[in-house]
Amino acid sequence: MLDALFSPGSVAVVGASRSPDKVGNRILANLIECGFTGQIVPVNPTASEILGLRCYPSLREYGRSVDLGVVVVPRPAVMAAVEDCIGAGAKALIVITAGFKETGPEGADLERELVRLCRARQVRLVGPNCLGLLNTERNLNASFAKVWPARGHISFMSQSGALMSAILDHAALHRLGISKMISLGNKGDVDENDLIAALAADPDTNVIVGYLESIMDGDKFIRTAENAAARKPIVIFKSGVTQAGVRAASSHTGSLAGADIAYGAAFRRSGVIRAETFEQMIDYALAFTMQPLPKGERVAVVTNAGGPGIMAADAIEQIGLTMSPLSEATRDSLRGVLPEAASSANPIDVLGDADAGRYAAAVHAAIADPQVDAVIVLLTPQAVTRVPQTAAAIADAADGSKPVLASFMGGRDVAPAIKLFMERGLPNYPSPERAVRALNAMCEYARWLRRPPRIVARFPVNRRRVERIIARQLRLQQHQVGEVAAKDILRAYDFNVPPGFHALTREEAVEAAERIGFPVAMKIVSPDIIHKSDIGGVRLNLDSPEAVRDTFDLMMLRIGQRLPEARLEGVYVEKMCPRGREVILGMTRDPQFGPMLMFGLGGIFVEVMKDVTFHIAPITQEEARQMLESTRSYALLRGVRGQARVDIDAIAVSLQRISQLVTDFPHILEMDINPFIVGPVGGVSLAADARFTLRSAR
Amino acid sequence: MLDALFSPGSVAVVGASRSPDKVGNRILANLIECGFTGQIVPVNPTASEILGLRCYPSLREYGRSVDLGVVVVPRPAVMAAVEDCIGAGAKALIVITAGFKETGPEGADLERELVRLCRARQVRLVGPNCLGLLNTERNLNASFAKVWPARGHISFMSQSGALMSAILDHAALHRLGISKMISLGNKGDVDENDLIAALAADPDTNVIVGYLESIMDGDKFIRTAENAAARKPIVIFKSGVTQAGVRAASSHTGSLAGADIAYGAAFRRSGVIRAETFEQMIDYALAFTMQPLPKGERVAVVTNAGGPGIMAADAIEQIGLTMSPLSEATRDSLRGVLPEAASSANPIDVLGDADAGRYAAAVHAAIADPQVDAVIVLLTPQAVTRVPQTAAAIADAADGSKPVLASFMGGRDVAPAIKLFMERGLPNYPSPERAVRALNAMCEYARWLRRPPRIVARFPVNRRRVERIIARQLRLQQHQVGEVAAKDILRAYDFNVPPGFHALTREEAVEAAERIGFPVAMKIVSPDIIHKSDIGGVRLNLDSPEAVRDTFDLMMLRIGQRLPEARLEGVYVEKMCPRGREVILGMTRDPQFGPMLMFGLGGIFVEVMKDVTFHIAPITQEEARQMLESTRSYALLRGVRGQARVDIDAIAVSLQRISQLVTDFPHILEMDINPFIVGPVGGVSLAADARFTLRSAR
Repeated sequence: MLDALFSPGSVAVVGASRSPDKVGNRILANLIECGFTGQIVPVNPTASEILGLRCYPSLREYGRSVDLGVVVVPRPAVMAAVEDCIGAGAKALIVITAGFKETGPEGADLERELVRLCRARQVRLVGPNCLGLLNTERNLNASFAKVWPARGHISFMSQSGALMSAILDHAALHRLGISKMISLGNKGDVDENDLIAALAADPDTNVIVGYLESIMDGDKFIRTAENAAARKPIVIFKSGVTQAGVRAASSHTGSLAGADIAYGAAFRRSGVIRAETFEQMIDYALAFTMQPLPKGERVAVVTNAGGPGIMAADAIEQIGLTMSPLSEATRDSLRGVLPEAASSANPIDVLGDADAGRYAAAVHAAIADPQVDAVIVLLTPQAVTRVPQTAAAIADAADGSKPVLASFMGGRDVAPAIKLFMERGLPNYPSPERAVRALNAMCEYARWLRRPPRIVARFPVNRRRVERIIARQLRLQQHQVGEVAAKDILRAYDFNVPPGFHALTREEAVEAAERIGFPVAMKIVSPDIIHKSDIGGVRLNLDSPEAVRDTFDLMMLRIGQRLPEARLEGVYVEKMCPRGREVILGMTRDPQFGPMLMFGLGGIFVEVMKDVTFHIAPITQEEARQMLESTRSYALLRGVRGQARVDIDAIAVSLQRISQLVTDFPHILEMDINPFIVGPVGGVSLAADARFTLRSAR
Repeated sequence: MLDALFSPGSVAVVGASRSPDKVGNRILANLIECGFTGQIVPVNPTASEILGLRCYPSLREYGRSVDLGVVVVPRPAVMAAVEDCIGAGAKALIVITAGFKETGPEGADLERELVRLCRARQVRLVGPNCLGLLNTERNLNASFAKVWPARGHISFMSQSGALMSAILDHAALHRLGISKMISLGNKGDVDENDLIAALAADPDTNVIVGYLESIMDGDKFIRTAENAAARKPIVIFKSGVTQAGVRAASSHTGSLAGADIAYGAAFRRSGVIRAETFEQMIDYALAFTMQPLPKGERVAVVTNAGGPGIMAADAIEQIGLTMSPLSEATRDSLRGVLPEAASSANPIDVLGDADAGRYAAAVHAAIADPQVDAVIVLLTPQAVTRVPQTAAAIADAADGSKPVLASFMGGRDVAPAIKLFMERGLPNYPSPERAVRALNAMCEYARWLRRPPRIVARFPVNRRRVERIIARQLRLQQHQVGEVAAKDILRAYDFNVPPGFHALTREEAVEAAERIGFPVAMKIVSPDIIHKSDIGGVRLNLDSPEAVRDTFDLMMLRIGQRLPEARLEGVYVEKMCPRGREVILGMTRDPQFGPMLMFGLGGIFVEVMKDVTFHIAPITQEEARQMLESTRSYALLRGVRGQARVDIDAIAVSLQRISQLVTDFPHILEMDINPFIVGPVGGVSLAADARFTLRSAR
């Protein structure tokens, strides 16, 4: 898909320089030194030869075609250089030069012009303001990075060129194998979505790793990532998660950071494994690139010391994996190969004097156990430990049928073992806790792969009715939809709503109450009042015509006095709701990822305990259930302390109906049903109050 | 205090061996090779010379005295070897030999005998079943570890010999400076408390670091650690925190792991900084040993790349520290030294082409800013970055007035800088997140040092009365104290308890109700019934003599039918409690650390949300307030959503009274007041129900 970028036959460096401290020299040198076998064409009007290659004043003068153009000229010359490349038939461009969107409005204008030109000519553009890219399989180093990594199957993309340098420097020391690495720069044209799709199709890549500060198109990201993640794991480290982070981001590459919760929901939905730190990003990449996925979450630990075994067991339990009991057969076979004092339980303690053979036997036995899905091997360098021999034996024992992750703890003495592990494809971590966390990332991805197919239910609804209500509100410029119209919308989507009538006069109110049957609730109707109860606009349990009359008059009088500007449009008279568990169902539209459904238990659970979950719409029944289950207060719905279980299905179905509603109507910017009253199983659940916020256009 | 261990004039190795693969050879070789300048005496009846030293069949034959004996003979010969050492005047012993408590009852017996012998002769014993110890200042390597570390000011103690090996191996690679390192082994005599006290007094140690799987004496630990932490930081990594961990521990050194929450409370109380992982333990040790403590929590970040700056800002905010705005003066001075495109806000972005001078100027300016308490310096190795020069300039700029922590990210190119930092006393971390976490540990310790003096209030109470109640319960073998007696105890400690009377007959119940005034509550009294409401033993709002009579008879009838074995001792008639916010106050006695006070909001907050805090008694007013504030639901007490603030002081005082009660009476094993009803400020708060569990002897 991005062949011209990753596998060009010829590369032009426009802005190639003779001066060794110039970026334009570095890139040319990198192309030559890293062994690119295609044609390399330096372009510079003031030189006839650079680094032994004939140099041309322009590609027009060069006369033949090039596949990839790397542009490093000063900003004012960029447009001409790009035109020159396109004229020479370039299918892809990398603009290294900075000074575009990241510097302000003028740079942004220039960038837009640049992108427009490329798109008009169907040329893909990486950058501007980037470090370039590299592809080890083609010996293509079209970047000014100082380091050329070993070949491997991890492909990285990074929105920070500096971080790309740090990763390459890390790779150089730790012999991390890399397939492709792309500096995203300002993402003028090629962005994370293009690269995820391309790398998913790339046979040399087995794990896609990204550092991102923003995402360009959230909808597309979810679709692209979901498709790609079905083929190979995607690990993303997204920074700018807190307010302080966001402030720093907005002063950085000029991109707007979306809300962290939305990113979390989008990643969860699309199977992207989220790294929370720089170290996790590399830790996870290593595990995914080197080891098969676990089929389950039962872990065995092999160790030559009790302490690290305890650490691993702690970490396994805390992160939610299982320390698997070993099968009787495994324990028998371990007893046959281990000394008497060793532990054949899990952790399998091979003792401080364990040699390579004893370690290998234990790892073998653990892998062979049908009750074990993954093995973590720990080693401390003790007096008689022969570290490299042991590492080799463990690497032999790890046969690729189940994931094996190592933590050889220490420094000087374990260094040769870690080197051997890197060569043999066995990931090693400096501490048991990090090995466990990496394994957990594998389990999380494997769980996502095993998920049931996503089937979004479509309920029969009265869509036309909602269209009319929304059109009317928008015509009246009433973007806040009050209770009366909100409940009409909900009724049209088959929500259970208490019977109620809009009454403009006292007598209409009495008539409505009599039609509904006492007792009733009465609520003020006004386009100017959102929080009705705060100003005395809600009265409950009115049990007689007199009470209705008195309340009507008092409400009009007092609210009229308190808010003389508010347009009062009568009252809403409604049947009293039964008591029940109150929950909040809602939706807010994230600027990146679109409609995010929310669920939480009512009142303090949302406001004080912040015990809510979000999920990106459209949502399946399975996902709706997961939303409920992922709140801490879920136990209250299931029934605790002798309270009855409430109708959980009613909540799940309502979330799905909201999902359908907000997917059908992009005009709905925000909404909530608060409270939604959940009855007992088989009983009545209903939307007791609701409000919507509309926007004029999508 | 443990001079003979750390600074002996002479050392005997009893069990010295000629065979290079024997531990008894390794220890002797370590003593010689590491340059111990005192007398070294090998003891072995079958050799006349080992490693060039004259060897004696016994210390009796040697004839002179030794200060420290290192015993490595086989287990059956240990007692005789120890006696030989003591006979030669040894003041301290290290028993390397294994096969004691960790192997079962027989080994435990032998260990007890060994310890008895040493204590009778006032000889301190390290081990048995340990790796030995080392002290770099004295060139004393009385261990069989393979690595001799550089001198430094970190002192380690480890309950796992293997982990000691791993730390030493890590130290060898990363040039970590160490003062003393002790393998605790079975802790037969010398334990963590002895070592914390000794290392606190040791002028060569500036941070005490421990890996522990258990603590021998919780009370003493708190006292010892609190005193030591007032002098220098203590970092402890305690493993065995989860159920899986605990199972692994019990099969390890035979020590029982206490409850994790109790360890957390004990560490918090005594100022111990808890490391959650092996890496954190070393990360924190590095920060504490190298940098001064921060005076506050406002952090400035200096970086040559936006991405890592965002990561640091994210981590700072997430962990609860503050990204400090810089003062105008600092921003002015930064504008003077940085290029125009650089950011003089926080993070201070010195740009990708920053040289050493620009970095130094930025670090200088950040340190000089009165609004900054600590500085984190990030670097990615970019095209023109001169890494070692930059590191040297930063090390010069870090003048020791405020903590400076670095994260030079990468591998190969940053390695020389990290080496330089280690030499110059500037801690470097592989990622910004780890630097931030280490800084946070420093802030946590500095906060503990700044805490107000602990003044435990003593309330005037009727202690005699409680003594009589408890004595009576114990005489009757009633370890479960029911509501009637429980409330008598609370009244004696001046808790507000609703008026109530124990009534044995129907007419006594009516009389009691009339004395109290209607409405009343009625509760069954029986030593055999703990959960009264579960069997219909609680009725509320009885508003007339008839209601009291009927309820009495029905309760006796129905409970008698349901629990024919239960002894029914009438009812407790009590004034109805006012409504109010319900909280739970309680105490459970941890086997290690003694009475742990608990606080939580009632009902679901405790049972579903697990939103509770613990603190070790006795407690100060400050600590009681902190307990309340550290629950998520605290906002409900302060008043949210228009609800009134409740009487928080009433809760804090009640916790202090419970603290006094359970400190006064070790017989109280557990208790709770559930619910404690908190009224509005200035109103009535009271203990609505309570129960105690007693134990016969302390």
